[in-house]
Amino acid sequence: MRGKVILVGFGNVGYHLSLALKELGLQVTVMVRPQAFDSLAEQSRNHSPNIKLVCDPSNLPEDAEFVFLTVKDDQIQTAASRLSTEIKNNACFLHSSGIKPWNQLEGICQNYGIFYPLNSFSKELAFNWEGVPVFIKTSNNESESKLFEIAGKLESRAVADDPKIREYLHLAAVFLNNFTNHMLVKADEILTEENIPFDFLHPLLKTTVEKALESAPRNVQTGPAIRGDFQTIARHLKMLSEFSDRKLYQLISESINPQLKSKL
Amino acid sequence: MRGKVILVGFGNVGYHLSLALKELGLQVTVMVRPQAFDSLAEQSRNHSPNIKLVCDPSNLPEDAEFVFLTVKDDQIQTAASRLSTEIKNNACFLHSSGIKPWNQLEGICQNYGIFYPLNSFSKELAFNWEGVPVFIKTSNNESESKLFEIAGKLESRAVADDPKIREYLHLAAVFLNNFTNHMLVKADEILTEENIPFDFLHPLLKTTVEKALESAPRNVQTGPAIRGDFQTIARHLKMLSEFSDRKLYQLISESINPQLKSKL
Repeated sequence: MRGKVILVGFGNVGYHLSLALKELGLQVTVMVRPQAFDSLAEQSRNHSPNIKLVCDPSNLPEDAEFVFLTVKDDQIQTAASRLSTEIKNNACFLHSSGIKPWNQLEGICQNYGIFYPLNSFSKELAFNWEGVPVFIKTSNNESESKLFEIAGKLESRAVADDPKIREYLHLAAVFLNNFTNHMLVKADEILTEENIPFDFLHPLLKTTVEKALESAPRNVQTGPAIRGDFQTIARHLKMLSEFSDRKLYQLISESINPQLKSKL
Repeated sequence: MRGKVILVGFGNVGYHLSLALKELGLQVTVMVRPQAFDSLAEQSRNHSPNIKLVCDPSNLPEDAEFVFLTVKDDQIQTAASRLSTEIKNNACFLHSSGIKPWNQLEGICQNYGIFYPLNSFSKELAFNWEGVPVFIKTSNNESESKLFEIAGKLESRAVADDPKIREYLHLAAVFLNNFTNHMLVKADEILTEENIPFDFLHPLLKTTVEKALESAPRNVQTGPAIRGDFQTIARHLKMLSEFSDRKLYQLISESINPQLKSKL
């Protein structure tokens, strides 16, 4: 693809998005805060040498087509209003927040919208865009088509923005990501306390996820709770040293199998 | 490898173990109940044509080196005592239970032990033995060495059996497998109720697990609970229609961030 784009912010999302857009052939300029410039430029030299980092708005290309704002939610409007006076052409300003309305920048920029990829980004891990939902909506049809094209070329899953879908996905993601991760934290704690390496369970974790992806999670539930195996549950509750962990074990077991309620 | 082995039971573990042992070059005979023979033989013809299924003990090879009992926990002793009178040579009888002591078959067989692979098996999914802990201990050193060799050739992780390690791994696995899967069930329920396809979150699930495997789960926790983001938590609790789901959301959030306690 051809064209120039600006990214504001070089955090986890900005980092991976800039790499991906560069990969598509776009000319990418990343704008960062002067205070953060040196350390980010160092990161960039090591991991993404073809990304141009600037901290002075006057060094931004005047003919950029898109400005992707990958800053924190509470900095979106400030960043947009500051840059919209610098960039004179009709660039489309996009926020990438999962919880802000698509038209968050209405009144601040002439051409605005949302480009929100739903996933968990971190600089340390390579990012696979395949199948990742990207919520898109802009005030301008032409910009929107181009963004759908970009998302398509990334092999991600472009979705016309829908606030209700985004909101329920966010709630579901708390269970799927945060709460799932917490179950892994607990498993890790139990083993660490007994000096048993957590990586004993790495293969089981992979299988757990493969099964849930292959079938539906509800079809592959196993274990003492769903079996109603009181003996094992009682033994496990005894093995947990913290009251709050016993409470957690009990409540999740009851949620898996409501027939256990008031019997544990 | 050379030699003959018998497997008793052709459930999820027996199925994958028989395929793996066959793959190593061993002659595998699987003993199943007469009532189940026809349907299992059909399965075997389709998926594992080189596995010999029998239901009459007199058709078992007399010179088998190992008898892997992959039956349910409460059938291990019965199956062993029945077959030990049929198989006259000094075959080593092995159970594959995660919760029975290694010497469960003492007094029933002359040569006995445990060969317990810790993972979740299902016939529908190909099984990757790489790194899978296999707990091994037998009454006979020679058998034990051979089993370590087998586990090694499967690229699994052979571990000298230790009941305490097995017990704590089992408890940790309830969190890592059963409870994690339940979080996915909840995410699925939330989306299904709103007619949003669950597979929107497949990429996020993969990332969640990659991160936890790459780093440690406790280092990669994100979300409203760990941030102490009361506004989002309150909104999410409102969105959950079931009291028990709100209770679950609340308790896990408090477990992630104890400072939330009695504030939700």
